[in-house]
Amino acid sequence: MRYLMTFAYDGSNYSGYQKQTNVRTIQDEIESKLKKINNNYDVNIHSSGRTDALVHAINQKAHFDLSINITTDNLKRALNSLVSSDIYIKNIVEVNEEFHARFDVVAKEYIYKINVGNYDPFLRKYNFQYNKLLDVEKMKLGIKLFEGTHNFKSFTKTNNIINDYVRTIIDTEIKLDNKIITIYFKGTGFLRYMVRNMVGLLIEIGENKRNIGELVNILESENRSLAGKTAPPEGLYLKDVYY
Amino acid sequence: MRYLMTFAYDGSNYSGYQKQTNVRTIQDEIESKLKKINNNYDVNIHSSGRTDALVHAINQKAHFDLSINITTDNLKRALNSLVSSDIYIKNIVEVNEEFHARFDVVAKEYIYKINVGNYDPFLRKYNFQYNKLLDVEKMKLGIKLFEGTHNFKSFTKTNNIINDYVRTIIDTEIKLDNKIITIYFKGTGFLRYMVRNMVGLLIEIGENKRNIGELVNILESENRSLAGKTAPPEGLYLKDVYY
Repeated sequence: MRYLMTFAYDGSNYSGYQKQTNVRTIQDEIESKLKKINNNYDVNIHSSGRTDALVHAINQKAHFDLSINITTDNLKRALNSLVSSDIYIKNIVEVNEEFHARFDVVAKEYIYKINVGNYDPFLRKYNFQYNKLLDVEKMKLGIKLFEGTHNFKSFTKTNNIINDYVRTIIDTEIKLDNKIITIYFKGTGFLRYMVRNMVGLLIEIGENKRNIGELVNILESENRSLAGKTAPPEGLYLKDVYY
Repeated sequence: MRYLMTFAYDGSNYSGYQKQTNVRTIQDEIESKLKKINNNYDVNIHSSGRTDALVHAINQKAHFDLSINITTDNLKRALNSLVSSDIYIKNIVEVNEEFHARFDVVAKEYIYKINVGNYDPFLRKYNFQYNKLLDVEKMKLGIKLFEGTHNFKSFTKTNNIINDYVRTIIDTEIKLDNKIITIYFKGTGFLRYMVRNMVGLLIEIGENKRNIGELVNILESENRSLAGKTAPPEGLYLKDVYY
């Protein structure tokens, strides 16, 4: 039986989502606990995509197959009782065996949070602590230029060699509430570091270090070195995945 | 020169406020860093009172004396650059040498947060994750019975032998917002575990395990064993201290 689960995690204490040797990852933590439930047979979970070290998820999705018979309610309860307290399985449903949590993604949403108020020790792992004023109105104009279909090579990891750098951003929004800026992106797909690199440039626009026209030039340049800093991981959340 | 500082801390990674051997405490962390600023001469900080392991503070206060000459702005900056990121010095002012951060307290405020919604991995260290419905209206009636001057022996640590168990609760409030219950107490002083024991009984009232009349009987009994559970530390915040 194939299952699709929706899960949240506080990424603070993990070296990212994806399985790696000798470090703690979300995938390892969940797979090792699913193995116990699955009569000690290995279980591979296939997520909608990886998240990097220290990045969080509100509604990550992954599918997996089990060889045992168990109701989704009991499976959710058993898995939550076993996984670390910084991971929470919100929902599990049965899906047909053709379903694939990565290949079938239609759209994804990310949010990025910046604290422009005073340093807050309670938020240190959950926001980028920026502690300086940003021109949010300028950032709101800038982010709209990311919408649509573009080659995002300037906004991925420098050495990320892939076939196709073209992605479509469907919707964006920036809100300022109580000194927390929340930046929202919805897109058909995102390249490695793409959200953090777009946020990095938006911050430079908000600082008045760059103007909005440069953003268009940088997109067209397909040259990572022009686009500026990568925003730190602790502000980033995978918000939702659509199939 | 004597200084009074206001500081916040995320207590999650500490064995409480007060200095102890072989464990990490807030007091040790701050004193060791103030010593560096004070030309390596020991500095003793005197707080408004201790907080227990895993308990947080939003505006804790402490006084200390330095032998060096430094502006409060520079002192705040230097100390924040040295202390662990889960502590933040919000404000430092000069006070006269008679001032004492514990003896001069006029009132203190605490809040206690309970999450009655779904388990949230991001809040696991910052709320009591209760995950069950509570009758908040009944709790709101119950908490009012703590207001005024009472002997709080039933609500302190079992083996807490002190001269005087009488304290005055000046104000209380309970709010429910987005599945988070926030319980507020303002009083002239609080015994060890007193807030967590009052909250423990209020939870039993909210669960309909106890009725409000029992609260009065328990206060009058001066018998800790009648009052029920101690609410866990992670929901508790020292909110403010008044002089």
